[in-house]
Amino acid sequence: MDIWVFLVFLLACGPAAATGAMFSPGAWYEALKKPVWTPPNWLFPVAWTTLYLCMSLAAERVARQAGATPAVGMALALYTLQMGLNCLWTPVFFGLRRMRAGMLVLALLWLAVAATLVAFWRLDWIAGLLFVPYLTWVTVAGALNWSVVSLNPDQAKGPVTV
Amino acid sequence: MDIWVFLVFLLACGPAAATGAMFSPGAWYEALKKPVWTPPNWLFPVAWTTLYLCMSLAAERVARQAGATPAVGMALALYTLQMGLNCLWTPVFFGLRRMRAGMLVLALLWLAVAATLVAFWRLDWIAGLLFVPYLTWVTVAGALNWSVVSLNPDQAKGPVTV
Repeated sequence: MDIWVFLVFLLACGPAAATGAMFSPGAWYEALKKPVWTPPNWLFPVAWTTLYLCMSLAAERVARQAGATPAVGMALALYTLQMGLNCLWTPVFFGLRRMRAGMLVLALLWLAVAATLVAFWRLDWIAGLLFVPYLTWVTVAGALNWSVVSLNPDQAKGPVTV
Repeated sequence: MDIWVFLVFLLACGPAAATGAMFSPGAWYEALKKPVWTPPNWLFPVAWTTLYLCMSLAAERVARQAGATPAVGMALALYTLQMGLNCLWTPVFFGLRRMRAGMLVLALLWLAVAATLVAFWRLDWIAGLLFVPYLTWVTVAGALNWSVVSLNPDQAKGPVTV
């Protein structure tokens, strides 16, 4: 087992886990009519933790099949990580209007895109080059998010509950 | 170029693109103070479309490096797709409270998880087995989402704007 590839795949479950923590069911969900077989609320995080472990173990096993070039598995694990973080930013910033949490997601996205760029470049420099516009744009987006937090301190203070 | 691997990686950008469409900036963002160099709104979808094409081309090139076992690239492309859809469901259902859109995301997630399970199983049956609990849980989640839509027709009718 390549523990690092497993850990990056596990890390790539982080954005999905974060959605569960940030968009919680709350009073709206409690008030909905639900079927009698609805699993109890406590079971959801337990189930998802188990599933994240299973799917990361599975992905590591598949990534390891890239026998000729083991670095392919790590590169695509990093790719999955950056894609999850990419999916997370808009709902946090525009959905929850949590600008500071959005800034954190964008900082993590920047790191994940940079790491993917490096891993890709080592395998194929054209693939690395194709990631340069992406890293540039995420840098601009990060500067914009940072400016908006600085220019709107009142709005940035607290989340808007949805 | 393996066009199918490229297309699955492009499809895997879909959930990220969907967040941009579903959590739009709106009046709240328009009213925020922004730096003078803020890119115009029309540039964002243009930039992202270009970036999705670049990153999918890059990922296909890297996936192709798994020379000994080309199916590894396709399997991990499907894995990226299911992870993005996984990140999308909670913000749509609990964030936007759009139950029907949530049902669509969950149906697509089910298909992506099933396709990943099959692709994984062909490469390594243990990796395939490790995906069985995941597909089972997504089936339960889908049945729950469907029941909630049916039992709460008034709530399911229209989205709650945030």
